[in-house]
Amino acid sequence: MTHPFDQITTQELQAATKLVKDAHAASDAVHFVQVDRIDPPKSEMVRYLEAEKEGRSLPIIPRRAYVYYYTKQTEFNKAIVNLTYGHVITKQRMPQGVVGPVLGDDMVEIEEYALRDPIVLAEIAKLKLPTGYDVRCEPWIYGTDNPKEDRLLIQVYMYLIGSNKHVESNHYSLPLKFSPVFEMFTNKFVRMDYLPAGLDEKTCETFPWEELKPVEYFPSINGEDTLRELKPLIYQQPEGPSFSINGNAVEWQGWKFMVVPNAREGFAIYDVSFKGRSVLYRLALSEMTVPYGDPRAPYHRKQAFDLGDCGFGANADSLALGCDCLGVVKYLDVVRTDKHGNPVTIAHSVCMHEQDYGLLYKHVNYRTGTSVQARRREFVVQTVATVANYEYVVNIVFDQAGAISVQVRATGILSTMPIEVGKTVDWGTVVAPGVLAAHHQHLLSFRIDPAIDGHKNTVVYDDVVTMELNTALNPFNVGFISKRSYVEKPGFVEQSPFTNRAFKVINELVINPTTLKPVGYKIDMPARQMILGSPDSYNVKRAKFATQQLWAVKYADDELYAAGEFTNQSQKDTGVAAFLENQDSIRNDDVVLFATMALTHVPRAEDFPVMPTDMLPQINILPFGFFEKNPALDIPQSVNSFNKSVYYDDSVQIAVNAASGSCCSKEKL
Amino acid sequence: MTHPFDQITTQELQAATKLVKDAHAASDAVHFVQVDRIDPPKSEMVRYLEAEKEGRSLPIIPRRAYVYYYTKQTEFNKAIVNLTYGHVITKQRMPQGVVGPVLGDDMVEIEEYALRDPIVLAEIAKLKLPTGYDVRCEPWIYGTDNPKEDRLLIQVYMYLIGSNKHVESNHYSLPLKFSPVFEMFTNKFVRMDYLPAGLDEKTCETFPWEELKPVEYFPSINGEDTLRELKPLIYQQPEGPSFSINGNAVEWQGWKFMVVPNAREGFAIYDVSFKGRSVLYRLALSEMTVPYGDPRAPYHRKQAFDLGDCGFGANADSLALGCDCLGVVKYLDVVRTDKHGNPVTIAHSVCMHEQDYGLLYKHVNYRTGTSVQARRREFVVQTVATVANYEYVVNIVFDQAGAISVQVRATGILSTMPIEVGKTVDWGTVVAPGVLAAHHQHLLSFRIDPAIDGHKNTVVYDDVVTMELNTALNPFNVGFISKRSYVEKPGFVEQSPFTNRAFKVINELVINPTTLKPVGYKIDMPARQMILGSPDSYNVKRAKFATQQLWAVKYADDELYAAGEFTNQSQKDTGVAAFLENQDSIRNDDVVLFATMALTHVPRAEDFPVMPTDMLPQINILPFGFFEKNPALDIPQSVNSFNKSVYYDDSVQIAVNAASGSCCSKEKL
Repeated sequence: MTHPFDQITTQELQAATKLVKDAHAASDAVHFVQVDRIDPPKSEMVRYLEAEKEGRSLPIIPRRAYVYYYTKQTEFNKAIVNLTYGHVITKQRMPQGVVGPVLGDDMVEIEEYALRDPIVLAEIAKLKLPTGYDVRCEPWIYGTDNPKEDRLLIQVYMYLIGSNKHVESNHYSLPLKFSPVFEMFTNKFVRMDYLPAGLDEKTCETFPWEELKPVEYFPSINGEDTLRELKPLIYQQPEGPSFSINGNAVEWQGWKFMVVPNAREGFAIYDVSFKGRSVLYRLALSEMTVPYGDPRAPYHRKQAFDLGDCGFGANADSLALGCDCLGVVKYLDVVRTDKHGNPVTIAHSVCMHEQDYGLLYKHVNYRTGTSVQARRREFVVQTVATVANYEYVVNIVFDQAGAISVQVRATGILSTMPIEVGKTVDWGTVVAPGVLAAHHQHLLSFRIDPAIDGHKNTVVYDDVVTMELNTALNPFNVGFISKRSYVEKPGFVEQSPFTNRAFKVINELVINPTTLKPVGYKIDMPARQMILGSPDSYNVKRAKFATQQLWAVKYADDELYAAGEFTNQSQKDTGVAAFLENQDSIRNDDVVLFATMALTHVPRAEDFPVMPTDMLPQINILPFGFFEKNPALDIPQSVNSFNKSVYYDDSVQIAVNAASGSCCSKEKL
Repeated sequence: MTHPFDQITTQELQAATKLVKDAHAASDAVHFVQVDRIDPPKSEMVRYLEAEKEGRSLPIIPRRAYVYYYTKQTEFNKAIVNLTYGHVITKQRMPQGVVGPVLGDDMVEIEEYALRDPIVLAEIAKLKLPTGYDVRCEPWIYGTDNPKEDRLLIQVYMYLIGSNKHVESNHYSLPLKFSPVFEMFTNKFVRMDYLPAGLDEKTCETFPWEELKPVEYFPSINGEDTLRELKPLIYQQPEGPSFSINGNAVEWQGWKFMVVPNAREGFAIYDVSFKGRSVLYRLALSEMTVPYGDPRAPYHRKQAFDLGDCGFGANADSLALGCDCLGVVKYLDVVRTDKHGNPVTIAHSVCMHEQDYGLLYKHVNYRTGTSVQARRREFVVQTVATVANYEYVVNIVFDQAGAISVQVRATGILSTMPIEVGKTVDWGTVVAPGVLAAHHQHLLSFRIDPAIDGHKNTVVYDDVVTMELNTALNPFNVGFISKRSYVEKPGFVEQSPFTNRAFKVINELVINPTTLKPVGYKIDMPARQMILGSPDSYNVKRAKFATQQLWAVKYADDELYAAGEFTNQSQKDTGVAAFLENQDSIRNDDVVLFATMALTHVPRAEDFPVMPTDMLPQINILPFGFFEKNPALDIPQSVNSFNKSVYYDDSVQIAVNAASGSCCSKEKL
């Protein structure tokens, strides 16, 4: 039987698009861009989950889907359909100026069209390319600089493929200096933009191309003839994994939750409990924006919103066994629509597996030499999305002591622009001859919907400050205390690293018998630089969420996305900054957090032609006075009869078996 | 043949102590506390390393050792001996007020004595303990609060062992309210301190003990009868490891360096190069201090310097195969002295092994669906020290792309104090009935001696700032640039997270042909709260290094320790803050960095009775325009024929073999 949180099925997606098609005349030329399940209203869902836990009969909650689609090439529409009873609930054309997300397939069509467009071909001709060179192009979300613009536009950046003509040649290493702009769907040529490549904003007409050598990353052409010798390190799980997964429902080491792939967020995690106690209602990446620091037209329009503009799940990679995930691996698939409304399955868009990550705890009693220790086993939920040049690796990692960490790695290929050979600028790094990688920022918003022992929670922050000096209590001036502040009204909390400010979500109605304080979880994030650019810039107006690290608002159905539902060519942020309005107190209420994970990326030469993963500062969601004591005392001690490690052999440097068995109360010799 | 960096041998240690003993009359009652090798003068060593690399004949550099010892129970002495030629170079009694480190063995003797001392026994009698209870005590470094104090003192904290009388019972969960102070070696009783346990600084005499239940962590007595089911995850390396280790010399994936255990720092890493280019001359933990936030006497004297006071290597744990380290593991042993000058080997104090840590890089060409990806293999050098209640796990981690990360985990047991049942205070957390864990800080200083393409380096910091607004270059107000500042004079660099301040060490004489800028390495650390307490407090005066995150000074032989050579009962910091004095410019010079890794620890209930590892914010030392491009293009692509992972079996939930072979160019379905 279907669970209300279960992901949309191919049948459901097909039914949804059929309902919408049937509601339109053929002449409307319905063109789908995104379809997925809508979460049930929380009020109903909470009743459902309670009934589920108590084994009572489950209320029926109709399954619903949203459908984004274009009609007549230029009209953007949204429909909501009831999947359970099979009818359209609402269907409306979005107001002028609201531009929907784009479909990867449509981007590829523009890409192909652009290389046939006569004006583009005429421009290419001016390059007088030596024989053997090919032109490749890459369509980009258009961005925003004009409040009157309401067409769905695409800017196309142009590159060359090296004379090797290899299909995997790194065109990003040979950027050209012109960029045509098209109207989506109609393929109407709008404008040719020329790219500045000097020290200022000036551009020039297209001259014959001066030969440059591409910098390749693909193994067979990257020039690395002798590879480093690396010996296999195999994750063996002879008895199978410690997790059990049934559909979207996961159980591991006391944790219970659901992992649900979707087209926009990649995946969402629902109904998280540890050792039978509720921790989170929902957790997902909510939005991200990537503004670039190059101030010059047309680069000022390079500001991607990879969830709202095109969908993180819809652009997910098919993860491969033993490549993206090791050990015993469970995969889930995401289902997206094509333009006709047919389901497209991206197999293995989410992988789940266990890994070891060092010591979880250890203590040696120096009196007896006895060591007590357990290793840290982690459960990883991973997805990787490819958004044109960049890859984002999103991991939600569970440990055995009640903590969750949200980890993101940025990899892939830097978005490049031309620069005259020998020149350097302060807003970017020269990563190859004639190639500039502009400074940029990755600002990801994670939406955390807590349920700390229930749905009425309070957001607080604790600062550590020195005590009043030269008092009877503090005569040596060494004392420091923790000072608590309550977030009474919706809004943001300022970062304050030098007071060790710690964000927490507590349940004021549940007192921890050990600490005698309310139970809670800590949201641990290092202080970071937030979005740059002036407040009046479109970059900032469109991504208010990125101006602060932590936002707290009151829960509302359908308020999931930090920058708003529709981000493509948006004029302003209709997300968290708008959710705040007309909200009163949020203390001891159904609160939701939006946490901004930020990286200001000043590119390194080492980040090109393919970038070693840049690990963004992680968000740790860990119990703080939630349990009465360390909740991981019930995991097995680590012993070598279990882990079967071996000593390095100095003589022949081949591993030999060590005496197995318990080895953890070894005394100092 | 011995390398000048090789660790001290048992024979050398014995020879050193014999030389010192022979230089004293028996009546001096020589009592050794610490002996180890001294680094060769850098000027000589640099010539040696150059000769070594060029295969020329090697200069002879005499091996030297330092010897710390007491005479006549109260006189602290330091000798320097020449191990190569076997003579004492210098030998001097340290001035009054300089107190040396203590030997773990001596702490244990005091511990045993304290429980026999008649005054202590009389105090214990007042507790009128129910039968079956035992008293346990724990000597603590005395700390500082009196400029006239020049005796080597020890404060002893008293606890009970639960009625279970188990040798591994957690006495930290039953703290008593009095603390005797003794003079070291003479065991003279100095004073009985009484511990405040209420809301203020008041203390009271000893009353009959009111029964409390201990909170146990030891598996057989912690009350966890049913353990969680965890299946084995085995690191298999059928072809052996990818590293090769010869004595102290390590080679792995293009890295070459020496790992040298020592009594004070745990281990130091020397002469680090990657792909034939010099990166570091030396890297080690230099000092750490742990001030507590409880302002009340006698807690104000709880400020440990775990390296200078007792030695991190001398207190290292014997690491166990398959417990502290997985896979194919190479161990090194540290050698310390006992009080008689005999060598004591702590077997396996350092372990080295490989681990997988997710993706190193990945890019999918959406046009072809082809994925290029490599996994991140790491080489870990690990030591764990037990300093009474606390454990510190220090990992130096090397990756395949030229980066080093310095990772520390704090675990073990919180230092506890009594609090009246039902009371709470702002400077600590109640972690069990009657048990307070005071807020405290862990401030660790890592000394980084860079050698970026040579020994003449410059320290800089880069800030990312918005460009001037409304100019022809920045008409849309979105531009931001990287602004470089040079550290011309020795001193500290302020933290500045909101300008994304990045510390770097560059070589101004070597220009990167790609970026056209000097080559360099980045020292990446998140902003943190530094030491609390007022500048006039002993806590701060003794640990100036902990007031700032990054210090840059000029290299000098024997200036290794951030808080100075002798920290026990020190009155002031004689380390980095003193090294600065009388130094002029350090630009383009032999610079050394001291980086402070900081954690303000507000204890959680979950941290007791044994603490899940608290991962301190790591220091990443990564190439920044050091290489011309990603230096990891020459590692093998990850394929399942190599990694041999398997699919999760939904039907029976037992792992089954998947088709092996290449799987990394799988296309989206």
